[in-house]
Amino acid sequence: MQFQLSPELIQKIELLVEERNDKELLLHLQDLHHADIAEIIEELSLDEATYIIKLLDSEKTSEVLMELDESDREKILNNLSSKEIADELEEMDTDDAADILAELSEERQEEVIASLEDAEHAKDIKELLRYDEDSAGGLMAKELVRVRETWTVAGCVREMRRQAENVTRVHSIYVVDKDDKLIGRLSLKDLLTVHPKTKISEIYIPRVDYVNVHTEGEEVARIMQKYDLDAIPVVDEIGRLVGRVTIDDIVDFIKEEAERDYQLAAGISLDVEADDSYYRQTRARLPWLFLALIGSFMAVIIAEGFDSALENYGALFFFTPLIAAMAGNVGVQSSAIIVQGIANGSLTGSLFKRLVKEVMLSLLNGILLALVLLVGSYYILGHDYLIGLTVSIALLSVMIIASLIGTFVPITLNKYGIDPALATGPFITTSNDIFGILIYFSIAKYMLGF
Amino acid sequence: MQFQLSPELIQKIELLVEERNDKELLLHLQDLHHADIAEIIEELSLDEATYIIKLLDSEKTSEVLMELDESDREKILNNLSSKEIADELEEMDTDDAADILAELSEERQEEVIASLEDAEHAKDIKELLRYDEDSAGGLMAKELVRVRETWTVAGCVREMRRQAENVTRVHSIYVVDKDDKLIGRLSLKDLLTVHPKTKISEIYIPRVDYVNVHTEGEEVARIMQKYDLDAIPVVDEIGRLVGRVTIDDIVDFIKEEAERDYQLAAGISLDVEADDSYYRQTRARLPWLFLALIGSFMAVIIAEGFDSALENYGALFFFTPLIAAMAGNVGVQSSAIIVQGIANGSLTGSLFKRLVKEVMLSLLNGILLALVLLVGSYYILGHDYLIGLTVSIALLSVMIIASLIGTFVPITLNKYGIDPALATGPFITTSNDIFGILIYFSIAKYMLGF
Repeated sequence: MQFQLSPELIQKIELLVEERNDKELLLHLQDLHHADIAEIIEELSLDEATYIIKLLDSEKTSEVLMELDESDREKILNNLSSKEIADELEEMDTDDAADILAELSEERQEEVIASLEDAEHAKDIKELLRYDEDSAGGLMAKELVRVRETWTVAGCVREMRRQAENVTRVHSIYVVDKDDKLIGRLSLKDLLTVHPKTKISEIYIPRVDYVNVHTEGEEVARIMQKYDLDAIPVVDEIGRLVGRVTIDDIVDFIKEEAERDYQLAAGISLDVEADDSYYRQTRARLPWLFLALIGSFMAVIIAEGFDSALENYGALFFFTPLIAAMAGNVGVQSSAIIVQGIANGSLTGSLFKRLVKEVMLSLLNGILLALVLLVGSYYILGHDYLIGLTVSIALLSVMIIASLIGTFVPITLNKYGIDPALATGPFITTSNDIFGILIYFSIAKYMLGF
Repeated sequence: MQFQLSPELIQKIELLVEERNDKELLLHLQDLHHADIAEIIEELSLDEATYIIKLLDSEKTSEVLMELDESDREKILNNLSSKEIADELEEMDTDDAADILAELSEERQEEVIASLEDAEHAKDIKELLRYDEDSAGGLMAKELVRVRETWTVAGCVREMRRQAENVTRVHSIYVVDKDDKLIGRLSLKDLLTVHPKTKISEIYIPRVDYVNVHTEGEEVARIMQKYDLDAIPVVDEIGRLVGRVTIDDIVDFIKEEAERDYQLAAGISLDVEADDSYYRQTRARLPWLFLALIGSFMAVIIAEGFDSALENYGALFFFTPLIAAMAGNVGVQSSAIIVQGIANGSLTGSLFKRLVKEVMLSLLNGILLALVLLVGSYYILGHDYLIGLTVSIALLSVMIIASLIGTFVPITLNKYGIDPALATGPFITTSNDIFGILIYFSIAKYMLGF
């Protein structure tokens, strides 16, 4: 039953496109799920992809377009006329249509909107374009089922049949008063289990979670996850029901956030995939590498400042990568735990208490590791315990400082409204390299006196 | 409308528990959502938490328990009798009940199951316990609405009223044949829009996505996301409908996977939160730090092997942390992109082609950065271009090797069924430190001849 993308299938489709064999193409594609067709399209050349999009009817291709990568979609849309894009939008839910429109140039947007035949759909889409893309207003769709509290169940079912035609998945039925203000909800299940003459006002659930059009996407995701909601209604400034956000959009949102945090931690400054162009990959990778090089260069200058140690204590220099690496590792651990705690909302209590805990943890781990290092260095340095002792004390100090930086920086960034995930990865490893080497040589200079 | 956890609220609740003022406590808690009560409970002492769990009725507390952290839940369950736990399980969906049971000791499990009054519920829960926790069988619930193809819509609605009582959210109605084999699905919407005398066989949708009880959780998540499903039916080895997985469980699953990848990349070997105990935090952090120390120690030994450079080319040693850091940064970038590509299923094409692309990318980035380093080192080394040239050539070589390792290792791990995310973070930085320093000194020895 599972669809399997194979090189043979792609070759077959490419051949059929080349032959302009529409009948066979339709036979191959019409029974496939739109997500599967999207996978095929991503393997084709732009001309082949455009050909297939134009061949299939817009009921299908509107869904296919939504599944594509933004960059692939952009290229295909450039190959379509404004009227053709409008045909696609007619078939889409308002939230998807607005997302697509937002990707076009302003001029193109106006042409496409002017080509829309369904005036109400056009009005809804234009309304959604007004909202910030990461707010509830930007995430919501206008499609939903609304009923009045004064209706009976029978009247409600009749009205729902009409409304539900445009609504792919019903999830919940929202109850509004005469001013269109959200006052409660009903489940389809509830409608099935009561007498048709019952008034909606008698059976609706007045407790309903909702968000405002301006609520941030992150907050919408947090509420929907916390309360396990499939959909959440969105109201405007004066409480009128204007849309709803469904869980599938939130799943995408959560995944994107997680991927972004992960990429930041890995020093990638742009959403990038393995198959992206050299230009895009370089844009994603080079900035952090460049900053890391500058940071490391400062560590070189610091080490050079202690060059008087070269003569008698040259062995100290064997350990600089170890000190730098451990500072980086400890810093990344601490900052990752803080960044996740902030993301989960599980980080409570004072900054001071947290810093004290980090110091204690690093002392605990640091003493253990310093002892291992002391023994190890004693053997490789030909039984010279002085340098080994210096290095071990420096390791312990560096681990404590590194964990403090790893804790303090993300919490402080977050306090000032900056994404704490920025403080992970190369940023924390590089700054800890610099501090680590400075502390290391300072301790060595004090202990050994060079 | 939003619930806000405040220190005042916690104090108030603590006071009421101390006074054993049950009436006031119920007044405060009964209107709260179970997710909010769970947040309160996580702030209380174990005795206070247990008191509240025993006070509220199990319809509410069963949901509260599911929201708690596993470690908090474990402590509270230890304070409850087997009969009390059984009362909680009676109110839970089968999948949640089985998850809770799986957390208990085997002896306790048997006691609790023996205390369950609803024999069918007990049988369902026992069935779920048989499956691997990360398989579709382990993720699914037995609660669902099933109808026979031979029924009419009216009969179906009647039967659904009965079944739907136990099903929190209906999502889809599954259609089975006389042998209970899954043959299709219906939406509630469809039921509302056709005549009551219509036969189910005339209106059901025969194309239905499903998974097998043994399908891995990751695959279930992938399918549900790809096809935007709210729920997916699960069949046994011979195609009989045995349960369904709902999107809320998958959202949790996706989040846990993302958190785990993130923690692995940060060198944290255990799911850990900022508020966890010293013992648990040390268990999560120390293993990787220890391995990183051993790895770094090997880099020290390698550097020591080139100690003959100390006399005339001591400045080389200023650059070891820079070389190691850049090797680590490049390795983490490459491996992160590969790990995400594997997770997304977007990684296609041959390993060889991918390695070639990485080499080209590192050449591009490396040449730019090596030039910057050449100019920088020329100035700080008092216009000695020879060491600067050595360092720059080494940087370029090290970046290429680091990106090859970062690409090759996760792909190879994945090929042998090992989680590729293991290859990120400290593993890749440490091994790249070692290779980086070896390559650096080898190039230097060749160029400078010490």
